[in-house]
Amino acid sequence: MNKTLKLCFIGFGNVGQKFSRLLLEKEEWLKSRFSCRVIVTGIAGRSKGSLVNTGGLDLTAVLSMTEQAGHFDPDSPDFFTGTPEALMDASEADVLVEMSTLSIRDGLPAADYMRYAFRHGMHVITANKGPEAWYYNELKDLAADNGVQFLYETIVLDGTPTFNLMTETLHGNALSGIAGILNGTSNYVLKLLEEGRSYEEAIRAAQEIGLAEADPSMDIDGWDGAAKICAMANILMDAHITPEDVSVESVRSVTAEALKRARSRGKCIKYICRAKRAGDKVLASVRPEELPREHAYNSVNGTSAVFTLYTDLAGELTVIQTDPGLLQTAYGIYSDLITLMKRI
Amino acid sequence: MNKTLKLCFIGFGNVGQKFSRLLLEKEEWLKSRFSCRVIVTGIAGRSKGSLVNTGGLDLTAVLSMTEQAGHFDPDSPDFFTGTPEALMDASEADVLVEMSTLSIRDGLPAADYMRYAFRHGMHVITANKGPEAWYYNELKDLAADNGVQFLYETIVLDGTPTFNLMTETLHGNALSGIAGILNGTSNYVLKLLEEGRSYEEAIRAAQEIGLAEADPSMDIDGWDGAAKICAMANILMDAHITPEDVSVESVRSVTAEALKRARSRGKCIKYICRAKRAGDKVLASVRPEELPREHAYNSVNGTSAVFTLYTDLAGELTVIQTDPGLLQTAYGIYSDLITLMKRI
Repeated sequence: MNKTLKLCFIGFGNVGQKFSRLLLEKEEWLKSRFSCRVIVTGIAGRSKGSLVNTGGLDLTAVLSMTEQAGHFDPDSPDFFTGTPEALMDASEADVLVEMSTLSIRDGLPAADYMRYAFRHGMHVITANKGPEAWYYNELKDLAADNGVQFLYETIVLDGTPTFNLMTETLHGNALSGIAGILNGTSNYVLKLLEEGRSYEEAIRAAQEIGLAEADPSMDIDGWDGAAKICAMANILMDAHITPEDVSVESVRSVTAEALKRARSRGKCIKYICRAKRAGDKVLASVRPEELPREHAYNSVNGTSAVFTLYTDLAGELTVIQTDPGLLQTAYGIYSDLITLMKRI
Repeated sequence: MNKTLKLCFIGFGNVGQKFSRLLLEKEEWLKSRFSCRVIVTGIAGRSKGSLVNTGGLDLTAVLSMTEQAGHFDPDSPDFFTGTPEALMDASEADVLVEMSTLSIRDGLPAADYMRYAFRHGMHVITANKGPEAWYYNELKDLAADNGVQFLYETIVLDGTPTFNLMTETLHGNALSGIAGILNGTSNYVLKLLEEGRSYEEAIRAAQEIGLAEADPSMDIDGWDGAAKICAMANILMDAHITPEDVSVESVRSVTAEALKRARSRGKCIKYICRAKRAGDKVLASVRPEELPREHAYNSVNGTSAVFTLYTDLAGELTVIQTDPGLLQTAYGIYSDLITLMKRI
């Protein structure tokens, strides 16, 4: 019972805070399940400052300080000034929990933090899909070369088993394809368009419920979907592609008129991500597609998401995640932590 | 590379034969993946006779004999006369693959074969949901007491990860409920009723495509669904219930008129199995329920099936299996074999 697992966080936004709360709640369970104490020895916030304590930060105090002041107290004895790399060193952590700001366009700086962690013998759990979309094979090899784990369950559909579904349960299957509605904002916007709202109104509504970013073009123009299908294809189908290889059509190409016409013919239009094996290549796309109105994908609305795996032995499997929130994202990271503790 | 895993089959119907073909196809893969040769040393057919060869039966020859003659050759040197229990002994097997005729009403004789196997130190993989519905906790304890594995992935939704989904990927989650369309025949019959066919016509059509048994009452009156939700609740929610505890309403209670009325109000009627935690009990039911027409369950037709898990951390997850066939059932058993080989 004197084993200790030290975590270092990069990023302490909504997800990092929710994950911290989950850790506090599950502290005793983890201790009794794995005979191991999990502590957080470093946190690098973007605008909040950074904290280090190799004996373990007081998470409850850190959370209440963050809630009250919006940043860490520069007078705290744990306050740390330095780069995230310096913080990783100072924290003496076993695991980097990488939750930095999303970086779809190039996977940076998240991928650089992960490279640094791997080279310094740290396991990595990431909530960032950019690195897997852009550099999956390099990062996977780097982790293997350094004998450490590389986990990323939460990057698609949060805590819903996606990558674990394949590696832990669908053993022996080969995938011929993947499909899915992977971006909530564009899906939500389509629904509102169908109900007669304009693009501008729909995007504003998506922003109001916290779905869309201030700049919604990443979602609406398909880049978020492209990064996600890319990460899935790289991880599950050994695709060796980047978002630049994905054929992307913006959801803006769908008119209210087209939605009405589809509806009158018993159809619906959904914004679908696909990856498909074609010879020794994997072709990926993100585009509006017409489906029968009673298709399972037509039941996927709001923040819900869905993916389908086309397997050779288990057949066609569809997984729907209904109305996820922040807890589900935090659970994805927590689930990786359990996977890690089971493996090491 | 001189490890050998010996399997003994009870039952050699469609599923057993398909599983044998899959074993032959995957022989080399299993050998290279686990450095272990998998052989079949005993087969107890119901009407085909039985075979034993502790050095390994020639599965290719057994399959072609079965195809040509419909039974095993009594003049074969491997031909065996005796009870399934005597065959388990004679086969010197490490694993019982239990595929005997379905026994929903009492789980017998399948449960007895499994008890015998556990007591004699054999792992058990079963395709039979009866034993898990009636005697799950007793069998689980018996397996644990004898230090052997007890696996049953294929009993609900064939090879679709159901039990493995929970144990291998949704670590740390508690379930508050399960729902699902778990019986294909009754679901198919409802669909045809909605299209204006009579019950008799619908049942005959389900029989013609091989969905319904000669006596379809097990499906139509909800007992198959009751056994499945019972097995799921016992295994995943520690429910300690039997099919007698399930509140069952036959799908016959749904009239064509009720289906039409539901449709006119933008609804549909589906035959739903449920288990729900209520205090320290788990309440289970199988009955027709009205759902919105755009509900994911309304896209589940033909032989397709679906289940939903209500979890505390990962949220609400729905898994749809689309158009499964015999390969998917065989894969469920094969997937258990891989789980077993990973664990031992």
